[in-house]
Amino acid sequence: MTATLHAFAESGNAYKCALAMRLAGMAFEVAFVPFFQGGARTPEFRALNVMGEVPVLVHDGRVLSQSAVILRHVARRTGKLAGSDEDEVLRWLFWDNHKLSTQIGTTRFLMNFLAPDKRPEAVIPFQQGRLKAAYAVLNDHLSARDWVEGTAPSIADLSLCGYLYYPEPFGFARTDWPAIDAWLGRIAALPGWAHPYDLLPRAFPAQGEPT
Amino acid sequence: MTATLHAFAESGNAYKCALAMRLAGMAFEVAFVPFFQGGARTPEFRALNVMGEVPVLVHDGRVLSQSAVILRHVARRTGKLAGSDEDEVLRWLFWDNHKLSTQIGTTRFLMNFLAPDKRPEAVIPFQQGRLKAAYAVLNDHLSARDWVEGTAPSIADLSLCGYLYYPEPFGFARTDWPAIDAWLGRIAALPGWAHPYDLLPRAFPAQGEPT
Repeated sequence: MTATLHAFAESGNAYKCALAMRLAGMAFEVAFVPFFQGGARTPEFRALNVMGEVPVLVHDGRVLSQSAVILRHVARRTGKLAGSDEDEVLRWLFWDNHKLSTQIGTTRFLMNFLAPDKRPEAVIPFQQGRLKAAYAVLNDHLSARDWVEGTAPSIADLSLCGYLYYPEPFGFARTDWPAIDAWLGRIAALPGWAHPYDLLPRAFPAQGEPT
Repeated sequence: MTATLHAFAESGNAYKCALAMRLAGMAFEVAFVPFFQGGARTPEFRALNVMGEVPVLVHDGRVLSQSAVILRHVARRTGKLAGSDEDEVLRWLFWDNHKLSTQIGTTRFLMNFLAPDKRPEAVIPFQQGRLKAAYAVLNDHLSARDWVEGTAPSIADLSLCGYLYYPEPFGFARTDWPAIDAWLGRIAALPGWAHPYDLLPRAFPAQGEPT
């Protein structure tokens, strides 16, 4: 059975998984989630994932959620992108989830996808300050190496880069972080790489009435 | 070699790991990190963990960081608390890191461990709103089951409960979430359970001058 990824393009967590499958040569179909019309809050979606979050991968009777779990599934199935040291790959996947991607996701949402009159303005610089510390950790780590773990691209790289190609402003400029900038260039040069907005259907702005 | 956990009691992420080792019967020593005196920012600590975060476990020549990686190591070594479905355990470990423990850690820090004149007041209700959604997901999940994954306590339970026994206010009341309340009671009834402030040395308030 072909895998089905429940996804939309603005979700960096969905993009990570789509990119991994593309780079690893694993076929998948996309089930579009109209996120900005409440597509992750419907009873049908909650039945698929009680966490109410995108992405979800349905494959061979398994329903997988949390991007890192899906990334590990892709690596296991294809024998590609697993990295060389499982604990070290997991360490960066967890760091990404608790310090980088999650904070970017929130900050970018507040700055770009929320109506300006609903925006909690004071939260944005606070989040950006925390993110600056995270960018510094990643930039330092990448200063002396080409890939996050080992000597080849792995799901750790794909997780960490997931929100860093988007054009919407959230306080990150590649030119401020030369080692991150060069690494994003290396990832984008991998055969099969695609930008999130070329790989998945966009959900913003929402069309029609909220569901 | 006995494992050494670099830790302090106010860190729920350190507590998770200490509690897992205690419940699994794995001996460990504590290397106290004077966090509020900058103990996680020293060159020596950064050499141990470039992420500048507690906990770190040093065991048999391995240096492990990120609480979930340490929890998995404990389960592997002791054959206990691993859960029955690795992907499902990981799913909740990732959700904890990106939606629950990280947000509590920040909110509790702002409300209790930061000088009031430095407190970004507007951030606190924003974080509490996000946390309320997370408590609802966990409470729903636990409404029809005793443990987060499978039919026995696992590292998923220990990760998710890590910040929920602390006495300092951060906007969480057990009485608001009956299924979480009952589950916290079940965990606290496990043989060997200890409260974080009885299991690890406290770092707050900092004694003496900042390092």
